[in-house]
Amino acid sequence: MKIEEDEVFKGYFKNLSNKERAVFEGGITLGALFHQFVGTPISVKNKETLERAIEDAMKNQPCVEDIHVKIVGNLKEEEYTSLDGNMLDVKLKIKVEDTVAYLRLKYIDELNYPLMYVEKIE
Amino acid sequence: MKIEEDEVFKGYFKNLSNKERAVFEGGITLGALFHQFVGTPISVKNKETLERAIEDAMKNQPCVEDIHVKIVGNLKEEEYTSLDGNMLDVKLKIKVEDTVAYLRLKYIDELNYPLMYVEKIE
Amino acid sequence: MKIEEDEVFKGYFKNLSNKERAVFEGGITLGALFHQFVGTPISVKNKETLERAIEDAMKNQPCVEDIHVKIVGNLKEEEYTSLDGNMLDVKLKIKVEDTVAYLRLKYIDELNYPLMYVEKIE
Amino acid sequence: MKIEEDEVFKGYFKNLSNKERAVFEGGITLGALFHQFVGTPISVKNKETLERAIEDAMKNQPCVEDIHVKIVGNLKEEEYTSLDGNMLDVKLKIKVEDTVAYLRLKYIDELNYPLMYVEKIE
Repeated sequence: MKIEEDEVFKGYFKNLSNKERAVFEGGITLGALFHQFVGTPISVKNKETLERAIEDAMKNQPCVEDIHVKIVGNLKEEEYTSLDGNMLDVKLKIKVEDTVAYLRLKYIDELNYPLMYVEKIE
Repeated sequence: MKIEEDEVFKGYFKNLSNKERAVFEGGITLGALFHQFVGTPISVKNKETLERAIEDAMKNQPCVEDIHVKIVGNLKEEEYTSLDGNMLDVKLKIKVEDTVAYLRLKYIDELNYPLMYVEKIE
Repeated sequence: MKIEEDEVFKGYFKNLSNKERAVFEGGITLGALFHQFVGTPISVKNKETLERAIEDAMKNQPCVEDIHVKIVGNLKEEEYTSLDGNMLDVKLKIKVEDTVAYLRLKYIDELNYPLMYVEKIE
Repeated sequence: MKIEEDEVFKGYFKNLSNKERAVFEGGITLGALFHQFVGTPISVKNKETLERAIEDAMKNQPCVEDIHVKIVGNLKEEEYTSLDGNMLDVKLKIKVEDTVAYLRLKYIDELNYPLMYVEKIE
């Protein structure tokens, strides 16, 4: 059984609307992803396996319906660097009953900041 | 200037109510904290400096008004272990204008799971 | 060019024998791997993509010739947990010129500790 | 009892000279430190508590005799960033019986790389 189907687990979220719950779970997943994987050695050689591993790991989290991770920036063939938060472009879809929230983690030039925000809630 | 006072930054959150925003930021901070610090070498000797460092680090995050971190479990004098998510007991206060959300990260015995949830929103 | 072929880089290691260098680089890679990935959400669903991503990421590190990562322990189909250091079984091969060191990260029951050690140097 | 005094533990290191052991343990500690703390939210406000917490955490690791951590770079009063590996300047002293190794983690301009190396072994 997935933990989000557990009655005890559900009991802890009765005080939230579906929208609130969706953005709460989305926030957790974005914060978790960033702080788990920033620092990982990265080059063109392991870019794709790391993108897939991040997606698959985060699909375990409650209410994650779908996630797409792209590592952006100029990676070189023979050199590696550490994954920087500014290199993450993440699209996250969270589902709580009939409510779907679309979230994003993306570097915003004007802010010089890797921003986590909610694109829309349906 | 704190980033949450930046007009460009604010623009990204116009589609959220204060309550939604508060639980979103709270979720980010709890997910970030867990995945940043789990794995840290921990013993009775560094328990308190680590608790303070986690609190002070997370106070940088947008909308964090206050945070209390306790590392629970039986630590020994001469032995160390890796910080486990189940050892974290965190009380987090998030403020968005007049809205205050109180969040918690705490191991729940019945679930065998370190749960992140919202205690109340005022 | 790989960083280990850079002359400036090489200059920093002239004070080490090939054996010392090999175990130094091996130590870095094992310490890095453990503290980067512990905490990652893990279930049977993402075990294999995470194992491959850890291997591919660590192959970027200087002098890593080969690496095999196995995540051990009883993972369940519908439940996930956080990757614990005790779940890591890693075989690492480090090459410095003609010297090859075989290193291991493995949970040792008698020690109740995920031990990093050198199996042999050739 | 500290783990490095355990006879079972010691048995795993009989194949290493004291020098090899010292640089192996030093490598582990530097790799661990980097990948544990990179990504942590950092500003002038929490620089010192984080430096102390990193030092105290790593003093738990086997054979760590002393460690000094400085977070370098231009931090601002009201803005925060994520701790980058290039911001770490670490001096580490490892002791194995009568052998003492002095290690360093420091950003090297010419390499554009946060280098881990051995300054001297006595």
